[in-house]
Amino acid sequence: MAEIRLAIVGLGKIAHDQHLPAVAATPGISVAAVASRNATLDGVPCFLTIEALLASGVEVDAVALCTPPMGRHRLAAAALRAGKHVLLEKPPGASVAEIAPLEALARDRGLTLFATWHSRFAPAVEPARALLAEAEIRSVRVNWKEDVRHWHPGQEWIWQPGGLGVFDPGINALSIVTRILPRPLFVTEAVLEFPGNRATPIAASLRLGDAAGLEVAVEFDWRQTGPQSWDIHVDTADGALVLSGGGRHLSRDGAILHDAPEREYTEIYHRFVALIGAGASEVDLAPLVHVADAFMLGERRVVAEFHW
Amino acid sequence: MAEIRLAIVGLGKIAHDQHLPAVAATPGISVAAVASRNATLDGVPCFLTIEALLASGVEVDAVALCTPPMGRHRLAAAALRAGKHVLLEKPPGASVAEIAPLEALARDRGLTLFATWHSRFAPAVEPARALLAEAEIRSVRVNWKEDVRHWHPGQEWIWQPGGLGVFDPGINALSIVTRILPRPLFVTEAVLEFPGNRATPIAASLRLGDAAGLEVAVEFDWRQTGPQSWDIHVDTADGALVLSGGGRHLSRDGAILHDAPEREYTEIYHRFVALIGAGASEVDLAPLVHVADAFMLGERRVVAEFHW
Repeated sequence: MAEIRLAIVGLGKIAHDQHLPAVAATPGISVAAVASRNATLDGVPCFLTIEALLASGVEVDAVALCTPPMGRHRLAAAALRAGKHVLLEKPPGASVAEIAPLEALARDRGLTLFATWHSRFAPAVEPARALLAEAEIRSVRVNWKEDVRHWHPGQEWIWQPGGLGVFDPGINALSIVTRILPRPLFVTEAVLEFPGNRATPIAASLRLGDAAGLEVAVEFDWRQTGPQSWDIHVDTADGALVLSGGGRHLSRDGAILHDAPEREYTEIYHRFVALIGAGASEVDLAPLVHVADAFMLGERRVVAEFHW
Repeated sequence: MAEIRLAIVGLGKIAHDQHLPAVAATPGISVAAVASRNATLDGVPCFLTIEALLASGVEVDAVALCTPPMGRHRLAAAALRAGKHVLLEKPPGASVAEIAPLEALARDRGLTLFATWHSRFAPAVEPARALLAEAEIRSVRVNWKEDVRHWHPGQEWIWQPGGLGVFDPGINALSIVTRILPRPLFVTEAVLEFPGNRATPIAASLRLGDAAGLEVAVEFDWRQTGPQSWDIHVDTADGALVLSGGGRHLSRDGAILHDAPEREYTEIYHRFVALIGAGASEVDLAPLVHVADAFMLGERRVVAEFHW
């Protein structure tokens, strides 16, 4: 198969930190163009908008959308209509309902749509899934607590409507939990804490359940200084499984079962190349549905203002 | 087929106003029991909870859940596990994600799950759908404005988390719009107005789009005194279609095309009997997905307190 010529749309922090190095490390795909309002990349044609890129005659086969979720539907639809495969950063859109029309477009045109959840590619996630498929699970606790000032410095869009606030990292936890647990989940209770001067929550507590009565307790907090927590604790009849470090480490009763270096985005681009080769798409909306449900049924509390 | 013995769960305003008379007017089904915390019905066995009903030995084939959406999943799962067909009042649940496990339960046990949207059974809805399937649609405006004090007197649950506020009537409009328009919609913008002392919105403005670029402008307001509005305006190349009265009347350029008496719940129970006879289920979550999306991506504004 010829090398896939990829355009990066939205050359911001996540594109620089993750997408560019991952594409460079993946055989069969390379960056051929960029569309970004505020940044350019040496050595490839750069455009201000995806429309300018698509109209330019520069040949690309696929597009990776690394812009914030608000407005991503328009970009994805434009790329698919122009015959390009599309990779969506997480979350795949600003709404749950906007994805189905994109899936239909991709299907009708024989293109790949890949809604990525990078945390699902953390090295201990699949081992955890395999263990839990056989386990008697008693309860699950998720602690996802980090310092927004460190991880999202100056990113105003996370505080704007649609930016999801603490659910932007929290959806990573949900993407893992929905992958490793054996049955579909649903949110039953939620409390969302909104800074008085911001449109999105800085913290959230959720309860989820499943058809067998499992309880999943979730704590998201963006005010965590000092040690950061990206941990999922699963109490089973065979011991306490802990998936920590955002999916990197797995232990049972304190004994390490898996511990491997993180290469989430390299795995993502390997998968993207394979999906394009197979003529397949991969879209799972469950994590975004849970976020939307939490906003719909959750109690809203106003807390201290947030200032950078 | 033997007559279907129905249990009504949650004998409140909607059960009294609509379900009881509609069941009485529908051949093939009759009320055989009631489970309700605060009310009883003469002539049939009455229980405080669905669990007491199901354990009682009183024979019922089907259950209509007329309780508020919070907690309805537990009731529906209990009824399906006991082998009963289930009819869900709208909205079908407090979350989008809780419905799929119920569908799976119903499918596994050969039972009917019917997630009702009563406004879809208004008499001019199907005629509007047929006209719009052929039309060149230019834009859509929805005005759904009513007086909460008149229509929901003293119903505190509508103001509690999960009660949906003005989306409780608004979802009726969304159930019609998603039925009559030819392509799937998605919310692109939303503003939600929350009274300072309440957990759910009293008004909302939405924008929805579709894959072809249609714009749908939606206004929900619960503060409407005087004339009430439940109107959907559709500008087409062949004139202005207006579906008014909550789906009862259809006109084009002021000329009445359809005008028939409302019998939504009788139609619902006819459909329920037919679905049970056919061994089929009917579940469409689109209206609830749009509400969840509006909560997730919408801007929240705090407005004047609401007092009954």
